[in-house]
Amino acid sequence: MSRNVRFHATGDAGVLRLDEVDVPAPVKGEVRIRARALGLNRAEVMFRTGQYVVDPVFPSAIGYEASGIVDAVGPDVDHVSAGDAVSVVPAFAMTDYGVHGELVLAPAHAVVRHPDSLSWEEAAAVWMQYITAYGGLIDIAGLGAGDTVLLPAASSSVGLASIQVARMVGATPVALTRTSAKREQLLEVGAAAVIAAQEEDVVARVLDLTNGRGARVAFDPVGGPGVAQLAAAAAPGGIIVNYGALDPRDMALPVMDVLGKHLTLRGYELFEITKDDARRRAAIDFVLDGLSRELLRPVIDRTFTLDEIAAAHRYLEASAQVGKIVVTIPE
Amino acid sequence: MSRNVRFHATGDAGVLRLDEVDVPAPVKGEVRIRARALGLNRAEVMFRTGQYVVDPVFPSAIGYEASGIVDAVGPDVDHVSAGDAVSVVPAFAMTDYGVHGELVLAPAHAVVRHPDSLSWEEAAAVWMQYITAYGGLIDIAGLGAGDTVLLPAASSSVGLASIQVARMVGATPVALTRTSAKREQLLEVGAAAVIAAQEEDVVARVLDLTNGRGARVAFDPVGGPGVAQLAAAAAPGGIIVNYGALDPRDMALPVMDVLGKHLTLRGYELFEITKDDARRRAAIDFVLDGLSRELLRPVIDRTFTLDEIAAAHRYLEASAQVGKIVVTIPE
Repeated sequence: MSRNVRFHATGDAGVLRLDEVDVPAPVKGEVRIRARALGLNRAEVMFRTGQYVVDPVFPSAIGYEASGIVDAVGPDVDHVSAGDAVSVVPAFAMTDYGVHGELVLAPAHAVVRHPDSLSWEEAAAVWMQYITAYGGLIDIAGLGAGDTVLLPAASSSVGLASIQVARMVGATPVALTRTSAKREQLLEVGAAAVIAAQEEDVVARVLDLTNGRGARVAFDPVGGPGVAQLAAAAAPGGIIVNYGALDPRDMALPVMDVLGKHLTLRGYELFEITKDDARRRAAIDFVLDGLSRELLRPVIDRTFTLDEIAAAHRYLEASAQVGKIVVTIPE
Repeated sequence: MSRNVRFHATGDAGVLRLDEVDVPAPVKGEVRIRARALGLNRAEVMFRTGQYVVDPVFPSAIGYEASGIVDAVGPDVDHVSAGDAVSVVPAFAMTDYGVHGELVLAPAHAVVRHPDSLSWEEAAAVWMQYITAYGGLIDIAGLGAGDTVLLPAASSSVGLASIQVARMVGATPVALTRTSAKREQLLEVGAAAVIAAQEEDVVARVLDLTNGRGARVAFDPVGGPGVAQLAAAAAPGGIIVNYGALDPRDMALPVMDVLGKHLTLRGYELFEITKDDARRRAAIDFVLDGLSRELLRPVIDRTFTLDEIAAAHRYLEASAQVGKIVVTIPE
């Protein structure tokens, strides 16, 4: 038996249970993993509350990210073996697999051997943030040397990952954050500049930082009317990649910026990358390269134990973290 | 001396004059053309009224499109010679050249020999509409067989050109128009369906026409809050190419359509195509191919004489036309 995180109704963090479940042997195309650490994501909160792109079927498993040791593999799986240290890439639907638990199944294409230099906590914090950042910045926007990229909500785990991904390809990451509170931490992670949106004129600062040209790329999880500011701060030929709806209102785009600068706005979800074999492989290779060269280093804000899973969700929902929230499972 | 259209102040159509001007011999990189027909565009109205992307310097020439006979060429020009029947591609700024007049200069890269099958009126009506349509639909959106494309303001010259360009590549053009008044004309030009936006539920009709999938491409000169409807009617992975601001209000984009369907919105002006040598050549080749196969046939709404240039502008501004407005210059 294994204690796995499940919920039997949507609701606040109190609906999460550690159910004793009997985890079957992996079938064709599956890997069973004894988890050592779990990465938490906003997607799980949305899934738990019934606000996600798919609805849970009860009792529902949950969880996109975990690291641990391969316990058993399905008959056709040959890229990992029992005993390997692996981590799980979010390349499946949570209605099919949920990897938050002690002993969990995952689809083989989502299981990756990661560099030995990573701790279990770090390995559980890699894939969602870096593949999300890679997909938006590299696969879609083609970010490269000489580009400036604006990063709203820069202190989120994807924001921090984006700072590192931008640095890895020689681009200039400019962090946008509501207040100055997280300025030093953002500079430490690698931001070239930090703009406190509630305290400064964002467009004027961006134009100043780019010699009047504007930023070629913005990678935005906020949306809403604030998109107009990103359009005003964009360079000719620029692209705004939107990957979230922290502001659920309609995005507003001033037509003269869009037409005059030939701007592109692009909606993006990482499943566009992880569910496509070729794009997922390219993403994984990019991230493994960055991890092994230590240009990508997951920032962990705080860890919780498995028994504290509800508290971990509540902490995530309070949005005070800088970096990733991880749940640990002792041996 | 030549009678050329000029204006000495911005304002209504009454500011247009037929000034007697002395047109110099073409210098390096220029061609001088004895014009036989002039194509009118909304861009000229905006330029005349001071609402265009560049401001006129007075006295200002005007005009992007003309057809006629080459009168003389600059020293380095070898792709056309005196006596050739040519037409002018809008590949320059109106602050540099304006081709509405009896004898006009144009930059050599903008002068094209067109198929003999075209009348002077047709040849003056080719380039703005077909290159605009080609650029948005083919160069940017990659329209092809199996695609459905939505065309708001479909009875404009670019709208009609887009119907033909879509048919040329095997796509399905769906015309959007305010009322049913122009339905028959749009079907005659080649629209697969016509949706009267003020009389029908646009999104429901599009979903019905596409078996619930939505349209992969929309090519939109309107903008404003109406863009939300195009996003709702878009297929997964769809693109909205915006090329005008008939509605000057901010575009509104519902984030759930943008994220859930990974939509792209792209601002586009034809100068992106015509000022880039390789893209302009590809566009011209595409249009010449369509003209010679008679898959592209300019629709002319009405012709005026050069003396009626102000009346021609007023008629354009009244927006009752279906197709192109052309000014003729007898031999």
